Amino acid sequence: MALRTQSFKRFTVNVNSQIRHYSVPGEGTVPSAKAKYVPKSGTYPKGFLAASAHVGVKASNTKFDDLALIASETPCSGAAVFTKNKFQAAPVTVTRDMLQRRRGNGVRAVVVNSGCANAVTGKGGIEDAIKMGEETDKLFDEDYNSDDKGSRTVVMSTGVIGQRLPIRKILHKIPTAYSELGSSHSHWMRAARAICTTDTFPKLLSRTFKLPNSEATYSLAGMTKGAGMIHPNMATLLGIICTDAPIAPSALSTLLTSAADKSFNSISIDGDTSTNDTLAILANGAAGGPEIVSDNDPGYAVMQKTLTEFSEDLAKLVVRDGEGATKFITIRVTNAKRYEDAKRVASTIARSPLVKTALYGKDANWGRILCATGYAEGVEGVVPTETSVSFIPTDGSAELKLLVKGEPQNVDEERAAEILEPGDLEILVKLSEEPGQEAVYWTCDFSHEYVTINGDYRT
Amino acid sequence: MALRTQSFKRFTVNVNSQIRHYSVPGEGTVPSAKAKYVPKSGTYPKGFLAASAHVGVKASNTKFDDLALIASETPCSGAAVFTKNKFQAAPVTVTRDMLQRRRGNGVRAVVVNSGCANAVTGKGGIEDAIKMGEETDKLFDEDYNSDDKGSRTVVMSTGVIGQRLPIRKILHKIPTAYSELGSSHSHWMRAARAICTTDTFPKLLSRTFKLPNSEATYSLAGMTKGAGMIHPNMATLLGIICTDAPIAPSALSTLLTSAADKSFNSISIDGDTSTNDTLAILANGAAGGPEIVSDNDPGYAVMQKTLTEFSEDLAKLVVRDGEGATKFITIRVTNAKRYEDAKRVASTIARSPLVKTALYGKDANWGRILCATGYAEGVEGVVPTETSVSFIPTDGSAELKLLVKGEPQNVDEERAAEILEPGDLEILVKLSEEPGQEAVYWTCDFSHEYVTINGDYRT
Repeated sequence: MALRTQSFKRFTVNVNSQIRHYSVPGEGTVPSAKAKYVPKSGTYPKGFLAASAHVGVKASNTKFDDLALIASETPCSGAAVFTKNKFQAAPVTVTRDMLQRRRGNGVRAVVVNSGCANAVTGKGGIEDAIKMGEETDKLFDEDYNSDDKGSRTVVMSTGVIGQRLPIRKILHKIPTAYSELGSSHSHWMRAARAICTTDTFPKLLSRTFKLPNSEATYSLAGMTKGAGMIHPNMATLLGIICTDAPIAPSALSTLLTSAADKSFNSISIDGDTSTNDTLAILANGAAGGPEIVSDNDPGYAVMQKTLTEFSEDLAKLVVRDGEGATKFITIRVTNAKRYEDAKRVASTIARSPLVKTALYGKDANWGRILCATGYAEGVEGVVPTETSVSFIPTDGSAELKLLVKGEPQNVDEERAAEILEPGDLEILVKLSEEPGQEAVYWTCDFSHEYVTINGDYRT
Repeated sequence: MALRTQSFKRFTVNVNSQIRHYSVPGEGTVPSAKAKYVPKSGTYPKGFLAASAHVGVKASNTKFDDLALIASETPCSGAAVFTKNKFQAAPVTVTRDMLQRRRGNGVRAVVVNSGCANAVTGKGGIEDAIKMGEETDKLFDEDYNSDDKGSRTVVMSTGVIGQRLPIRKILHKIPTAYSELGSSHSHWMRAARAICTTDTFPKLLSRTFKLPNSEATYSLAGMTKGAGMIHPNMATLLGIICTDAPIAPSALSTLLTSAADKSFNSISIDGDTSTNDTLAILANGAAGGPEIVSDNDPGYAVMQKTLTEFSEDLAKLVVRDGEGATKFITIRVTNAKRYEDAKRVASTIARSPLVKTALYGKDANWGRILCATGYAEGVEGVVPTETSVSFIPTDGSAELKLLVKGEPQNVDEERAAEILEPGDLEILVKLSEEPGQEAVYWTCDFSHEYVTINGDYRT
């Protein structure tokens, strides 16, 4: 496999507050406030390669790469979690089938196009997604058709709904992407940019970690893209995580499901769930050491903690880039009898337009938080006289108590305004005084710009 | 009981598009686009009287009436439906208790204040709500304490959350309102205005109807107020319906529950459910005829249809006045296996910020409608290849098919723009080709002004 290093166009930091280009991949200009989220270097997992290529999936996109390829140098374990939307896009169906057929073994690559979601495209769309996988498989000669389980490629698409892919153009450029594969930071960054649609910055993270009973230093790398939806696009949350730790497919699947629950399934931009949402993980074991086969293995718990935290950090980048967002809100619901109850309350608060507009307005409106807590569906154990609400400042100063066991507090509005001024804020809802389960949700505010992006784009 | 007619200050029609005053009752200026929803006359049920008075519940309100009183000249049947929010305001608790204790018999009045919701106010708030009821009871000397079932008054409050009522001021003005009671259109209109908070127009409807086996002409009158929530207010959906038809309490309760399900429980402004939402009905039988006691009575079905349609029309007025709304959207989901499925799909579409911003942007974005259909929770029988989506124009012209049995249609964008231009639109989602259950939901769009009203009011 060719390993080429390629120079990468440096990000131009833009001083304007927010630039969002509709339906084209991130184009190299990053709003100044977001520049700190774009890493300048990284530590990437051994035996993985990344690349991008320009297809022009949208005819209007004449210059930005819109095809990404991630490959493992050896067949590896793969797992994925998918949208629960009943209108699942063709690549979701095809990838799910592939992973089931292979039982997560012998995966080689992830191929992603932006610009067209290949969703609601009927049988033709399924055929297109299959072709994308097969074209990628062919590049790995030694493995193609080496077993009878078919494709080895995870396929993802994001962009316009209800339109067919320009499949010939895509197939034509998959070998081009392959020829560009490399393992440097800029290779990974190019791939992270190519999967973007309306994102204002590419979302790429990497880190190293240790596992018990192993001398090796392992790496994790992950990229994701945001979940805003622009007409006629239905942009999508996509995530790809790679690690050189050795993990068997069934363990990889449970690790990913649990990590996703506390990360990508614990964020909300606007409550809409797309047809294409996919989070996939590949583990090729290239760093060596004993394989994690089940949750009895000593490395499992550490791997779970590492993967969950990494997934949380990736998912938070999506919220940081929420359409029109001016705030990054952590909602922590504690002392619940059941985790599901805490999560449902947190998710209901995170989705309330009234809470989100109040936060945009820097308004200490605990009534709206309480109200959302009270109408969260299917929740047990919300007792008005046991419920407390506070703001937790991000500077480490004391919490501001708004409601204590159902009693409204005399709120110092000046202090509230101070706490609400910065972009980051934590809302703490205690459902009781008894220790219990906790859930954390991340969300952003609802701004004029959200409405502009999602409603006004034509004018 | 004094029956005084009082001159009523004519509405000033304002040529500016929308005027919304925060936290004070509607002040007599109605946006020109909304003037058509304010009736200039009405036919009101016999034996009911209405009035308003100025309390100044909010200290800043020095001139607008903020106390409404509706009274029946004789003890009557009463029923109500309430918010399902777990943080129920004191008047909700007190009114629910009153109706249970009385089993809906012998009700005399509804007393409502705007400007303070008496929500999250602890035991003191409960005492305040009880006092409002008792003060009203006292005015009906002949009935007060004439049985041992306590208060005869429905109590409602709407406005700021977490603050105590200025209860002495309110109690002081209840006799004033009583002395102003009358049965003219302007009496009803004054009461309808006094319950408003951020509404831009008072919402009052009346109509006459016939029942089988009766020569009498019956009347229905109803008023409601909108469900926007403004800090530090938690404004509320309140509704009061009066009829002079003779209906026993248990029948009244089932009639109301069913009507509410298809009307006030089938609208959404922003998906938030307040602590105070209450819809109450009083039936005094003053127009005579045989009493409707159960659903076996010949009048029951006609009464149900009449009350449901009337409630729908009242509820639609709330949507017409949705905060920042520029569109009135009817969402019709048909051919479902179960009514609940149809309703959940309709409600999910109605709550999707992406659908609502697209409608604001006059964007034929069926992908977002489909997407919301696909992620509606707990719904059976959504099959992508069976689902069709159309826009139904309000001018009676042909529907515009967007998706037919899962196949995207080649949409004439010019025709779509024509259909999306007027303020009213119907979205039709067919879940199958087989006849089945249908649910209708009414909602409005999400505009910049919604964000301004709910986020920017301080700036």
